Amino acid sequence: MYGRPGSCYIDIPGDFVNLEVNKSSVKYVECCPPPPTSMAEHSAVSKAVSIIAHAKQPLLIIGKGAAYSHAENNIRKLVDLCGLPFLPTPMAKGVVPDNHPNCVAAARSTALQHADVVILLGARLNWILHFGLPPRFRPDVKVIQIDICAEELGNNVRPAAVLLGDINAVTKQLLEEFSKRLLKYPSNSEWWKKLREKIKNNEERSKALALQKSLPMNYYTVFHHIRELIPKDSILVSEGANTMDIGRTMLPNYYPRQRLDAGTFGTMGVGLGFAIAAALVAKDRTPEKRVICIEGDSAFGFSGMEVETICRYNLPIVIIVVNNNGIYTGLNEDNWKEMLQYGDPATCVPPVSLLPNLHYEEIMSAFGGKGYFVKTPEELQKALKASVTDKQTPSLINVMIDPQSDRKKQEFPWLTRSNL
Amino acid sequence: MYGRPGSCYIDIPGDFVNLEVNKSSVKYVECCPPPPTSMAEHSAVSKAVSIIAHAKQPLLIIGKGAAYSHAENNIRKLVDLCGLPFLPTPMAKGVVPDNHPNCVAAARSTALQHADVVILLGARLNWILHFGLPPRFRPDVKVIQIDICAEELGNNVRPAAVLLGDINAVTKQLLEEFSKRLLKYPSNSEWWKKLREKIKNNEERSKALALQKSLPMNYYTVFHHIRELIPKDSILVSEGANTMDIGRTMLPNYYPRQRLDAGTFGTMGVGLGFAIAAALVAKDRTPEKRVICIEGDSAFGFSGMEVETICRYNLPIVIIVVNNNGIYTGLNEDNWKEMLQYGDPATCVPPVSLLPNLHYEEIMSAFGGKGYFVKTPEELQKALKASVTDKQTPSLINVMIDPQSDRKKQEFPWLTRSNL
Amino acid sequence: MYGRPGSCYIDIPGDFVNLEVNKSSVKYVECCPPPPTSMAEHSAVSKAVSIIAHAKQPLLIIGKGAAYSHAENNIRKLVDLCGLPFLPTPMAKGVVPDNHPNCVAAARSTALQHADVVILLGARLNWILHFGLPPRFRPDVKVIQIDICAEELGNNVRPAAVLLGDINAVTKQLLEEFSKRLLKYPSNSEWWKKLREKIKNNEERSKALALQKSLPMNYYTVFHHIRELIPKDSILVSEGANTMDIGRTMLPNYYPRQRLDAGTFGTMGVGLGFAIAAALVAKDRTPEKRVICIEGDSAFGFSGMEVETICRYNLPIVIIVVNNNGIYTGLNEDNWKEMLQYGDPATCVPPVSLLPNLHYEEIMSAFGGKGYFVKTPEELQKALKASVTDKQTPSLINVMIDPQSDRKKQEFPWLTRSNL
Amino acid sequence: MYGRPGSCYIDIPGDFVNLEVNKSSVKYVECCPPPPTSMAEHSAVSKAVSIIAHAKQPLLIIGKGAAYSHAENNIRKLVDLCGLPFLPTPMAKGVVPDNHPNCVAAARSTALQHADVVILLGARLNWILHFGLPPRFRPDVKVIQIDICAEELGNNVRPAAVLLGDINAVTKQLLEEFSKRLLKYPSNSEWWKKLREKIKNNEERSKALALQKSLPMNYYTVFHHIRELIPKDSILVSEGANTMDIGRTMLPNYYPRQRLDAGTFGTMGVGLGFAIAAALVAKDRTPEKRVICIEGDSAFGFSGMEVETICRYNLPIVIIVVNNNGIYTGLNEDNWKEMLQYGDPATCVPPVSLLPNLHYEEIMSAFGGKGYFVKTPEELQKALKASVTDKQTPSLINVMIDPQSDRKKQEFPWLTRSNL
Repeated sequence: MYGRPGSCYIDIPGDFVNLEVNKSSVKYVECCPPPPTSMAEHSAVSKAVSIIAHAKQPLLIIGKGAAYSHAENNIRKLVDLCGLPFLPTPMAKGVVPDNHPNCVAAARSTALQHADVVILLGARLNWILHFGLPPRFRPDVKVIQIDICAEELGNNVRPAAVLLGDINAVTKQLLEEFSKRLLKYPSNSEWWKKLREKIKNNEERSKALALQKSLPMNYYTVFHHIRELIPKDSILVSEGANTMDIGRTMLPNYYPRQRLDAGTFGTMGVGLGFAIAAALVAKDRTPEKRVICIEGDSAFGFSGMEVETICRYNLPIVIIVVNNNGIYTGLNEDNWKEMLQYGDPATCVPPVSLLPNLHYEEIMSAFGGKGYFVKTPEELQKALKASVTDKQTPSLINVMIDPQSDRKKQEFPWLTRSNL
Repeated sequence: MYGRPGSCYIDIPGDFVNLEVNKSSVKYVECCPPPPTSMAEHSAVSKAVSIIAHAKQPLLIIGKGAAYSHAENNIRKLVDLCGLPFLPTPMAKGVVPDNHPNCVAAARSTALQHADVVILLGARLNWILHFGLPPRFRPDVKVIQIDICAEELGNNVRPAAVLLGDINAVTKQLLEEFSKRLLKYPSNSEWWKKLREKIKNNEERSKALALQKSLPMNYYTVFHHIRELIPKDSILVSEGANTMDIGRTMLPNYYPRQRLDAGTFGTMGVGLGFAIAAALVAKDRTPEKRVICIEGDSAFGFSGMEVETICRYNLPIVIIVVNNNGIYTGLNEDNWKEMLQYGDPATCVPPVSLLPNLHYEEIMSAFGGKGYFVKTPEELQKALKASVTDKQTPSLINVMIDPQSDRKKQEFPWLTRSNL
Repeated sequence: MYGRPGSCYIDIPGDFVNLEVNKSSVKYVECCPPPPTSMAEHSAVSKAVSIIAHAKQPLLIIGKGAAYSHAENNIRKLVDLCGLPFLPTPMAKGVVPDNHPNCVAAARSTALQHADVVILLGARLNWILHFGLPPRFRPDVKVIQIDICAEELGNNVRPAAVLLGDINAVTKQLLEEFSKRLLKYPSNSEWWKKLREKIKNNEERSKALALQKSLPMNYYTVFHHIRELIPKDSILVSEGANTMDIGRTMLPNYYPRQRLDAGTFGTMGVGLGFAIAAALVAKDRTPEKRVICIEGDSAFGFSGMEVETICRYNLPIVIIVVNNNGIYTGLNEDNWKEMLQYGDPATCVPPVSLLPNLHYEEIMSAFGGKGYFVKTPEELQKALKASVTDKQTPSLINVMIDPQSDRKKQEFPWLTRSNL
Repeated sequence: MYGRPGSCYIDIPGDFVNLEVNKSSVKYVECCPPPPTSMAEHSAVSKAVSIIAHAKQPLLIIGKGAAYSHAENNIRKLVDLCGLPFLPTPMAKGVVPDNHPNCVAAARSTALQHADVVILLGARLNWILHFGLPPRFRPDVKVIQIDICAEELGNNVRPAAVLLGDINAVTKQLLEEFSKRLLKYPSNSEWWKKLREKIKNNEERSKALALQKSLPMNYYTVFHHIRELIPKDSILVSEGANTMDIGRTMLPNYYPRQRLDAGTFGTMGVGLGFAIAAALVAKDRTPEKRVICIEGDSAFGFSGMEVETICRYNLPIVIIVVNNNGIYTGLNEDNWKEMLQYGDPATCVPPVSLLPNLHYEEIMSAFGGKGYFVKTPEELQKALKASVTDKQTPSLINVMIDPQSDRKKQEFPWLTRSNL
């Protein structure tokens, strides 16, 4: 809890679980005080602000550190005050709502590649941000690093300014300095024009894909309907390769700390555990809030038996399996045809894919929840409406999509690192 | 492969799985030669035989080392020649068939507790054999240790004689020595009388339990029917606490290396992986041979999603889930009644148990195999016959048993260790 | 360098050491920027100051974190401004000079035991500070923790206030707050009276021991002469059990970062390496500064061969071996008499002690430095003067002391932890 | 002790060392029985003998496993009976005396390179034996592996025959088989002629080097005198790079288990500990036997302070430091001249060498033993005679040799591995 937040592991001996104790003999230990916060030194703050003031093509990157430090109000004020374009990392989505006009997530590659000043607010230049290196970043990009963890400062790229401190506290310091200086980045700049144009193009392409009528559905169509039908304050859990990646773009977050995905380490198999934990917390504190768990079919296979736990504790999680038969990247025509003919999958499909047309929804019904097998947009809408409305029963919607479906063509392959 | 056999882990990079190579460029590497064997020194052999010759209440314990060294023919000859009572460890069942008249598995506690000389043939005095210590063993028991691994000799108990070498080679040495000396342990001794009486009592108690007509069924009834209906040469995979323990007694093995259970480390979650591996080997070499995988319901939960793999490769494994709702030891009356009323399981059942009456068989049908939900002996028989007969399709028989069902009362709790 | 400072390990392949490169092909990499600093949040600062303002018996503990952050000027101002009694931890000696009138090191146990408010400035409640627990501390002591490392906050004792940030930056914040509030702890308080009295008593006892004329000398006499004769700005390296402990009290530091001892982990064998590193740095930057390395004879034995390195690089280190024949705690009369008779040490001295009267100084002369064997105060003075004056040659003074010599009787054994 | 012998680490808590117990309350635990032995299977023995019988250029390599299993008598008989040339590994020297006419150590490279059948008696094809690969071995060499450890069989080279068992027991089996078959390798073969010629050449070159009169002495001269003057049954401890390597050739062993060197892992710094352990055992069992510890000066530097332990327990070890000033391979002319002029070594000698002309013998005299500084053959002889004669006092002879001295030119660099 103190310093850089992280997970901990608590091991409870088996015999403790069933033991009984005399309640009067229980010693209550006071909870530890809330984490202490620190601020950046004043000179570093004003150096950072000066650099931003001189930027031609600035970009604010909001990381999960911002979410952890509950900095949403101050960051929102900072974005509004300064007019900066911003980009959230996956777990930081919703710190400022994804539909804020300054969000340039739909022009991510362009924004990263042309920014002359990048402000990292609790984000790290790891593989998710392509290590801050060309060709994904300008070789002369100036990086301003704001972080709670001194040991992370200067990783991969030598920063132009560093602000060591709690993200929320430092954001407040930045706000004060910007207020004093009356600085605002002009919304009619060339940079904004370029970004807005790119956003428009990308959104049109996504929309076109989303509205395709052909069957089986593609990823964009599926996510389009999910976005339309789930409550805006839902907690989104997401895992799987394409499912998680495309979901990052297609499923907006409007509130902070409402998205749980594989994060920095890209671990598969954690989604159902995340959903159970989120649902238990929600049950206690915000019983109206829904947990929507969107899984690739391979990802679901890692811990699908956790559906039993979900049913045992009667947690009304909506699991959506986006089922492309375990294909990691789109199949070619021939494989696809053979697969449709239901030959021996061991001979006609790639070795790491799964059996076609599996009925994952029956795993939910086997344990007492509701299962839906879905092939068309209409079936998807119907199943989603029913699941979201029923706040008593867990459900699983098994959505069959085209194994040839893939992400839109990317300018850069996902993890490009400089080859210089 | 050489020395003490063990598992190995092979890690294949993801991109290797889908790569293609030019077949002509493949370099074939010759397989390593078969493992070299060693024999015990002559003086140790004759010392061991002398000790056995003077034993009043000898006991031969056959361990999995005997199975690994393919010593079955020689051990069988040794048992027949010398007339010794023998006891197999779990993974050694079938080295000599469980129905051999000298097998005293049904009088295990008595045999261990009163033996004055114990011959360990590739078995270790670990927790499964109660560390060779009182009260499960006589404090003055003489131990003859026959093992391939020098470092294991003398563990826990100081042996009276040690024979270091390959189990099969040393068994041959013992056979020769016994033949020369014309020794045979008399079948009308007090020791044999005591053991036979105990066996008779225990088998009657098991039989009575097996024939109980009340519903839900108990463990003994279920195993009784399995024993009757599966081919004698089936490969048995077994895991779960009670399921594995009672199955050790109730399901005989007639051939060596046909039983796979959690073994020395007692790891849960390995059963389905074992079954898949066994079925792939069988498919290749002995396609008529069936793999029967008997799982407790908790154990099945560890890796139930592997059913997808079973169906993908079309392996006709018969999975039997002996389903007592995840209860480790029999429930008391009150819990049981509450549970039957289908109240909120979180309040009426012990925290580590599972949801009652789950339909595990639907996991099999979700992936294309056959599922059976079974509550009575008749349903069990029918499902078993159908599954065993169908050599094309995987099946899962979900057998509902009494959550209050437990093992017969034991003289000693399972893992008793000396408290002296 | 960033965050909590620590050591690092650089491994240079053997063949690199002798390789030659073309100087023109060397790429120079810029040094990383100086470590960023952080400050405490304002509310925590004013909370801490309020607690101090209400303290009856406050105590400031200065830790090595204060030395690392170069906070000496501000801490000195703080001590002068507020009038607080202070205590340095071993590696923090000299941050404020040991002869400052507010230093209560000579009344350490009393100060710790009766303080009602303890301010930790870069110090941790580890074994050196008896974990902050009774009987060495009041059970109701209020702890104010000032630290650069969030994860250390709240260890062992729940603090009354925490200030997370760079020690120097936070000290400045405290200074400002104290200046504003015009607070000063009165020098005529009961607390100061008690501490001053204790200091007087302890210093008199030390002085009496220091002036004893009997031979062999005791620790206090030896340290008394060292203190008198070495330059005030010498770098002191110290290791050994009694030698390091008594040296902490008897050898004052007047400048920060001039004392190197075994520190938090109490590792023996590091002294000569410390001395070599310090001498190499001094040679480069402050060639007038002397490195004085005071070693117990057991401690010297761990890495005495490093004297060769000292001589090879001609580092004018003065090593003083305080030689009590490897006795950890004072011998009894009988052992001592036997030892003096030079019997077989294996029979008359404790097994973990060393040979009596060894000539460690000859190890120095074997490698080209100067060695002195010293039994009396006069010899010690003469050898010290010669060593300190000669700035070209390494020297080793082997000082024979009474194996029965020990620390003055302590109120508490060194590492007392609560037994409650 | 059982299986492959190895070291163990015993950690005794500090307070145990000085504790006293009531002798009557001590419980004596019986020592574990001697290690059980195993034999090879008969068919493997006769296969191995057949291969040897057909060999044109056989070579027996005796490893330290032979020494550990006390196989010296049987191996000697085997060598005499079969007439095979043999080569000991470093720790196996003396199993058969180095002056046995069949020892081909002086033609090591030739023997390894041309053998068509190699019999490994408790030796491994590790780096010391160049992994059994070309160019140090014939690509078609047939390897017969005799080893106690099954897991070592087949390492690096696929063996033609393997005999798993205790070296002594298997040697007996081989002896019996050879006796039966009346096989003897002819001493007038081409192979023996080639080997004898090479031995003669090499010994003459060594002798020439040993008899050089120029000063400073070279390695061969020093070892020549050591060989002449120490008792034949001395325990030899050896470490250092050149010192250990040349000593392997120049210092013969006549008895098994009398040579301790860095062994398989090549660890430096263990020599003095080895010598202390050997001297303590000898003191107890064979008080007449001398321990001669021959150290390079760099090697001595690792743990030279152990001389104090040697003196404390009055162990009459003779340490000989073969002192070439820490030079690993011979200096060039210029370095050497500069060094002789005693300039600043940091500028004129290689960075990893030591100070020239150090007086290590004074470390011995500092602790009460006898030290000798030796520059000529006459001084060396005198010091050696005095040291070897005095059975009460530890001594150290510091022998100055030419830093340009090196091993005779080798056909292959020491660790050549195939580059194919």
